[in-house]
Amino acid sequence: MRGAGRVVAEDGIWHGGDLARARALFPDAPQPWVDLSTGINPIPYPLPALPLSLWTRLPGADDEAALIAAARAAYRVPDHAGIVAAPGTQILIELLPRLAPSGPVAILGPTYAEHGHAWRKAGFSVAEAGPPEETAATIVVVNPNNPDGRQLSRTELVSLAARCARRGGLLVIDEAFADFTPETSVVPDLPEGAIVLRSFGKTYGLAGLRLGFAIGAADMMARLKAALGPWSVAGPALHVGAQALADADWLARAGEARTHDASRLDALLAPHGRIVGGTSLFRLLETPAAPALFARLGRHGIYVRRFQNAPVRLRFGLPGDEAGWSRLRAALAADAREASPPA
Amino acid sequence: MRGAGRVVAEDGIWHGGDLARARALFPDAPQPWVDLSTGINPIPYPLPALPLSLWTRLPGADDEAALIAAARAAYRVPDHAGIVAAPGTQILIELLPRLAPSGPVAILGPTYAEHGHAWRKAGFSVAEAGPPEETAATIVVVNPNNPDGRQLSRTELVSLAARCARRGGLLVIDEAFADFTPETSVVPDLPEGAIVLRSFGKTYGLAGLRLGFAIGAADMMARLKAALGPWSVAGPALHVGAQALADADWLARAGEARTHDASRLDALLAPHGRIVGGTSLFRLLETPAAPALFARLGRHGIYVRRFQNAPVRLRFGLPGDEAGWSRLRAALAADAREASPPA
Repeated sequence: MRGAGRVVAEDGIWHGGDLARARALFPDAPQPWVDLSTGINPIPYPLPALPLSLWTRLPGADDEAALIAAARAAYRVPDHAGIVAAPGTQILIELLPRLAPSGPVAILGPTYAEHGHAWRKAGFSVAEAGPPEETAATIVVVNPNNPDGRQLSRTELVSLAARCARRGGLLVIDEAFADFTPETSVVPDLPEGAIVLRSFGKTYGLAGLRLGFAIGAADMMARLKAALGPWSVAGPALHVGAQALADADWLARAGEARTHDASRLDALLAPHGRIVGGTSLFRLLETPAAPALFARLGRHGIYVRRFQNAPVRLRFGLPGDEAGWSRLRAALAADAREASPPA
Repeated sequence: MRGAGRVVAEDGIWHGGDLARARALFPDAPQPWVDLSTGINPIPYPLPALPLSLWTRLPGADDEAALIAAARAAYRVPDHAGIVAAPGTQILIELLPRLAPSGPVAILGPTYAEHGHAWRKAGFSVAEAGPPEETAATIVVVNPNNPDGRQLSRTELVSLAARCARRGGLLVIDEAFADFTPETSVVPDLPEGAIVLRSFGKTYGLAGLRLGFAIGAADMMARLKAALGPWSVAGPALHVGAQALADADWLARAGEARTHDASRLDALLAPHGRIVGGTSLFRLLETPAAPALFARLGRHGIYVRRFQNAPVRLRFGLPGDEAGWSRLRAALAADAREASPPA
């Protein structure tokens, strides 16, 4: 695993999806890389034709209104609630601590590391653990959770939201992976004091577009929108987002297909460890051999997600074509052979 | 001017570029609109082919590094200085007050209204006038200025930067319109304590792409980058920006052509008032008849920029084709006829 310790993000957090890092870790791996390091749908929503004016003009109020209308319908946002579009959910994660009330923050971990990082950067005291401490004012839950797919019930979330409200804080629910399981979303009956984050790029396979949403009380959303300022979402993202979010048929078909893919992945991975959980866009494998498996897959040009604080776990995204499935199957089989003692 | 008072941005600031507003103001205007309400180059940089992976993958470190290298060369950023890319300059304008030292802010006005708005939102005391007050810690200068093209000399800017540094503040220099006059830029010999903003979309005619930069002391730029978080610039913007910023020939040719266009615009406007200034992307006309001229141009489907605090001024962008020039010429002539007493 040459250089493995040196290649981390600038903020020290490991992320999937950056093949420059994969290449640095495994310079001799066969090309092209099979990137399973993210939870991004490998079969993207088909890009519509993009009129040149989307690129040349400042993003217009009409285009933004069309996107917001489509998002309100897709996420079933109640009329009384506000919704804000941003160039990716990440920047909303960065901004929320700047607008939030003071008080200790609890993050239901282990989960996506950028939540804790953002609250700590803004000066909050942050505990990242299982059940949130009684003293927490603000609680952050990723639901369904990344990387283990943990789901909290609506009853649990309503109870957490009430607790945060009593302490003058917020309940932040990151529903980045809820699109294929709309029954897990609290948006249609939004608890008071809850802010929900929704990501566009993962489900629709268009992470480079940069589009995400926050949903919550109208006054808090107005403050978030003011913090972003005008024209924060690019013209092409407004257009693609509006079209894709209105396409319920595509979403239903993609959900079925990815659920099937996830079962297929489980079958491939089962001989190599315990499948701890996941969603229909990624699966989490636990095995003491995870570090060795990460390195062996890497040498075969297959990049998966490992975890700084959980070295026995690897997260696998879905291959996007039969070539990817074949290479994963072959690399896993090679792994078994390499691990066997020589005959 | 039916409804003119009702159609303003959510933050109360008027902006050019939103044809939804033009249509609301002048519902009976002939189509298509000739939009001269912005300072955006009407002849855009030709969009290169965009590989699908720019849309589907998270923006990669390789792509960001290529953009930053091209921007460093194009803007002649000294090695010791830092540079940060963002999804448009606007979000940098929003973030700067959150990272700046305390103390009164002076903005050399009248200028682009979003600067003052952002500092006020963040709780700063802001004076917007001609020469900055002696008590100001942080000073904001748009150079060349929008809308009047005012230019401060390098000596004046170095002196302002030193004054801000003595008071523990910053000098923010918005060089959104400096690309065609590189001799006006302070970037190559950046004064201590100065932060320079550069916009991509205006010169390159791709405002919908959302791309802007901040240049300044390395530690301050690291803080700005941390506030934005990872993946803030979309994949297509990284790619187009890197290619365009490396194309010095295109920039030189575009600068010559737009300077020619600006002279042509001056000749058309001269009979209608006094040309107060501008850059080669826009011209500022002063006339007591400005409100009437705005309304008459609007009824002819030509949208120009008016100013809440300067009702005798109109800013004209450049028509992008001969049809636009013809319609502007005809509308201005009609204006003269309409203003004449009946024969």
